[in-house]
Amino acid sequence: MRRHNLGTILTEVHRHGHRSRALLTAEMGLNRSTIGDLVAELTEAGLVLQRSASAQGRAGRPSLEVVPFPEGVYVLAVDLGVRHLAVARVGLGGDVLDRVDVEPERDWSDLDVTVEAIADTCDRLRRAAPSGARCVGVGLSVPGVVRHEDGLLRFAPNLGWTDVPFGARLGERLDLPAVIANDADLGALAEHWRGAAAGYEHVVVMSGEIGIGGGILVGGRPLRGRGGYAGEIGHLRVNPDGRLCRCGSTGCLETEVGADALLREAGRRPGSGMDAYRDVLAKAAAGERDCVAAAARVANWLGVGVGILVNTFNPDIVILAGPLGELYQATADTVAEAAAQSSLVAPREQVRLAASALGPDAQIVGAAELAFEPLLEDPIGTLSRHAA
Amino acid sequence: MRRHNLGTILTEVHRHGHRSRALLTAEMGLNRSTIGDLVAELTEAGLVLQRSASAQGRAGRPSLEVVPFPEGVYVLAVDLGVRHLAVARVGLGGDVLDRVDVEPERDWSDLDVTVEAIADTCDRLRRAAPSGARCVGVGLSVPGVVRHEDGLLRFAPNLGWTDVPFGARLGERLDLPAVIANDADLGALAEHWRGAAAGYEHVVVMSGEIGIGGGILVGGRPLRGRGGYAGEIGHLRVNPDGRLCRCGSTGCLETEVGADALLREAGRRPGSGMDAYRDVLAKAAAGERDCVAAAARVANWLGVGVGILVNTFNPDIVILAGPLGELYQATADTVAEAAAQSSLVAPREQVRLAASALGPDAQIVGAAELAFEPLLEDPIGTLSRHAA
Repeated sequence: MRRHNLGTILTEVHRHGHRSRALLTAEMGLNRSTIGDLVAELTEAGLVLQRSASAQGRAGRPSLEVVPFPEGVYVLAVDLGVRHLAVARVGLGGDVLDRVDVEPERDWSDLDVTVEAIADTCDRLRRAAPSGARCVGVGLSVPGVVRHEDGLLRFAPNLGWTDVPFGARLGERLDLPAVIANDADLGALAEHWRGAAAGYEHVVVMSGEIGIGGGILVGGRPLRGRGGYAGEIGHLRVNPDGRLCRCGSTGCLETEVGADALLREAGRRPGSGMDAYRDVLAKAAAGERDCVAAAARVANWLGVGVGILVNTFNPDIVILAGPLGELYQATADTVAEAAAQSSLVAPREQVRLAASALGPDAQIVGAAELAFEPLLEDPIGTLSRHAA
Repeated sequence: MRRHNLGTILTEVHRHGHRSRALLTAEMGLNRSTIGDLVAELTEAGLVLQRSASAQGRAGRPSLEVVPFPEGVYVLAVDLGVRHLAVARVGLGGDVLDRVDVEPERDWSDLDVTVEAIADTCDRLRRAAPSGARCVGVGLSVPGVVRHEDGLLRFAPNLGWTDVPFGARLGERLDLPAVIANDADLGALAEHWRGAAAGYEHVVVMSGEIGIGGGILVGGRPLRGRGGYAGEIGHLRVNPDGRLCRCGSTGCLETEVGADALLREAGRRPGSGMDAYRDVLAKAAAGERDCVAAAARVANWLGVGVGILVNTFNPDIVILAGPLGELYQATADTVAEAAAQSSLVAPREQVRLAASALGPDAQIVGAAELAFEPLLEDPIGTLSRHAA
């Protein structure tokens, strides 16, 4: 019970960044001295600080506010992509305190090389951490199917991996508890925990640069399906007259709204990358006619895809992430109109559209949250397993 | 605890039709005399019978088998559709003991008239029940959105209803506890409890004659979304060159695989009904060329739709129900091939396709299961509220 209460307080402080003792007392239904006692234990453990908050009323006694101790504990968060690797040190409270982006376009097909590259980067971040700060775990985001029960990476076609104990290997190398999850699931969870989907239970995140993927939350939990493959929405067919897709069909979401679609529509070379993509969007924003028209055409098919997902999932919110988020910010009305035309009235009236609030940090944020989970469940017990 | 154990035994007997005392003892981890005692209480309450089962081995003592008492308790199950009304008396164990189908094409726009028509039919079935049999509830399946918390029927566009306390009204009229749920959700749950999806947690049921709907289970629970509208899959676009749909798009699942699509492809008059539909399928089975080709074309688009749902949900099983089930039985290979071509390898390898095992009884079976739930949770307490 005490463990549970300590966990609840630490979770509140972690999620919200700060929490007054008065609010914790009210929320948890405990008396003031019990809360004071619990907060004192967390303070002594080096997890939180107490500071005086400005009083709400003139006459009131200023309430004490509880905040994460910035140099107390942290986790390492790893975002491994087909073309990128980012490793961050994330403090209790969720702030990214330090971050390293490893050069892109590396070949991750050799597991040993990849584990070592990540571990080296983790070591660098740990050495740069303030002395006394304790690392309590590492969270990994991977572009593949993860077996939920034991974290085995089942299948990562774009990395060329099948059935590798990736998390376990990295955890052993670093001597840290390691947790691993699918990048799309983590992206959706991150938006739910700290982003555009905060407070929403039914969430669809559409993302991806070339392949289009979906991170879907049903009742606050990732939709995984039987084997973890759910959310493959890239081959929803949106454009009856669209291009031939690598899947053999035509007019898939992937061919019609991927980054190359916008480049092609604007007369640019497909594959010329995100700078060219952003250039088209910037020129569209500046009113350059060809780019305006190109963005509108792609935005239309994106909206059709959104509409299909609205009908299928009746979500609270559909979040556009990555290049799709940038496109959405430039063409929100067009996307919304096309989505409205291809969805039914009732679910349409209940949905919000939004660009990702976390952007490219979503996987880092999600991986960090995963890594913090044991600490938030049992603060003192978890800490006792990690010496400074 | 005792209540829980009584409920567990009754649920096992209800779901499986019979259960040996030896098996119950093993499954529940209780000792034999406790099981004997619990079964005796259920027997005395008129819920179950014990009978001698054939011994498994020659030397073994024959185990006693527990079965539902057929004239003990029953529920009423109502399947209200746009064009039909069926009411059934369903016994503990799940057998449909009696059933009345009210004439089709009635106008259900007046709530009072509808409640009275259903209640009259229920009264008839109750009068025809064996004396001493106790009715413990009524379950309703409706083509509309039901608010899960209190059973308010939010929205049934095809009945013309908005926010009607339909279940509560019928319950009052019949002086019975009434539970109400969406027909697609109940169809999927029924297949999960007693049909083709038994043992599966991730289930997609595609059904519908004109509009195409989806009943989707995620982790064994209906996918409802924010407001209960999830599963509107009729406007997934499958045929790039398809017909104009009433939704304004072209080539939707609804226009390409609804009953009229087959009739049209076979040169029959759309709207000529299920007899004409079955005639086309029968002629296709007999090798009549035009009908074979018509069925294959529609089966292809059905398969494309299945493939999209396989990618999106990674289900254990996709069940084709209603006219789609009849089409599938006639064209299984074509549907499977098209589904394979429009889905990714990993989820495709994990999915089964099947025709509905319950057919048009799915909603009756589902509604009956709902109505039995309180009895299965607390057999003696529930029974004490229902005099013979």
